[in-house]
Amino acid sequence: MRHQIDLLATVTVLGVLEQAYFTLQVIYARRQHKISPPRTMGHPEFERIFRAQVNCSEYFPIFISLLWVAGIFFHQGVAAACGLLYLYTRFRYFQGYAVAAQERLGPLYASAWVLWLLLGLAVAGLLAHFLLPAAPRGWALV
Amino acid sequence: MRHQIDLLATVTVLGVLEQAYFTLQVIYARRQHKISPPRTMGHPEFERIFRAQVNCSEYFPIFISLLWVAGIFFHQGVAAACGLLYLYTRFRYFQGYAVAAQERLGPLYASAWVLWLLLGLAVAGLLAHFLLPAAPRGWALV
Amino acid sequence: MRHQIDLLATVTVLGVLEQAYFTLQVIYARRQHKISPPRTMGHPEFERIFRAQVNCSEYFPIFISLLWVAGIFFHQGVAAACGLLYLYTRFRYFQGYAVAAQERLGPLYASAWVLWLLLGLAVAGLLAHFLLPAAPRGWALV
Repeated sequence: MRHQIDLLATVTVLGVLEQAYFTLQVIYARRQHKISPPRTMGHPEFERIFRAQVNCSEYFPIFISLLWVAGIFFHQGVAAACGLLYLYTRFRYFQGYAVAAQERLGPLYASAWVLWLLLGLAVAGLLAHFLLPAAPRGWALV
Repeated sequence: MRHQIDLLATVTVLGVLEQAYFTLQVIYARRQHKISPPRTMGHPEFERIFRAQVNCSEYFPIFISLLWVAGIFFHQGVAAACGLLYLYTRFRYFQGYAVAAQERLGPLYASAWVLWLLLGLAVAGLLAHFLLPAAPRGWALV
Repeated sequence: MRHQIDLLATVTVLGVLEQAYFTLQVIYARRQHKISPPRTMGHPEFERIFRAQVNCSEYFPIFISLLWVAGIFFHQGVAAACGLLYLYTRFRYFQGYAVAAQERLGPLYASAWVLWLLLGLAVAGLLAHFLLPAAPRGWALV
């Protein structure tokens, strides 16, 4: 079983590491601007970094869900490559948002496109699985 | 392996699509009320829609976790049917909350009941798995 | 397949139960301090309990992801034991934060250490899988 999901598991671990990095940035921003929990406001830069981290956290389960369904039902390597691209766009998004709210938009749109792509792969893989059951190993599209 | 999880994967993808719909509603409400990120307050209707989306996002990983454990250890079809019901109650919750905070309560309670049901199925499936190991394929309860 | 993931599924269900407990505490605090949704501020105790629950929710998908990758690629029993430890530290964190923001720190650091441990196990398991493919069942480190 493991070799069918090893790349997905690797991208998942990289995604967790990215989330850890974002969380550390929020902690540093809290210290820099002296904003102690449970407060979540008080300085524009902190608020941007905080919202960037919250947004990435919110999308993390969506991303992981699509990554695994696309990887299992369409093609593991293609899904993992999209996953790496998504993590890169999220890194750019976080860095941009920390500078200015406007700077987050380009990478945010890019990350959304990668998610739609993963969604398309997941749907294509599921359709192939349900409609072409006799295809070899279900990978009719690959 | 795929045919044991294909319905769970399908409901997962539908759940992601629902979350995408909720996120788009927040974006539209931001534009309508001219509330730019990182701000999350400023107009009661926006705040309700925003909180509705945050609440659904918060429950998404819980829902996915229970869906898969119940689907793998109890019965895939039953779990997937509960999953569809959950997504429907969440849709009603979101629509209700957008109108008035009071309107969210009925569907919220319904969605909580479906989650408790999925939790019960997951626990029943795990108990059957651990206590009745000789049962055919572990589906002793079905 | 089920016996390779039954402990992971059990810890997952326990984690969901813990999240349900945290959510109920927020509901009780809302009633006690008469803070109706969508409001998320208004009384220091409520804000601490609310932030504690939000923080635990944010980490839940991270925790589940690491639990399953570590459990599948390193060792299920070790990962499940770490998972139980994590849930215990999160319980202590929530109880501490409800009393005072300062009280959350010890259990928070403990929970972070358990996550780093799970991350280390996941990475070790994946490295062993990729670098030692001939090892019996991939569990080269156990």
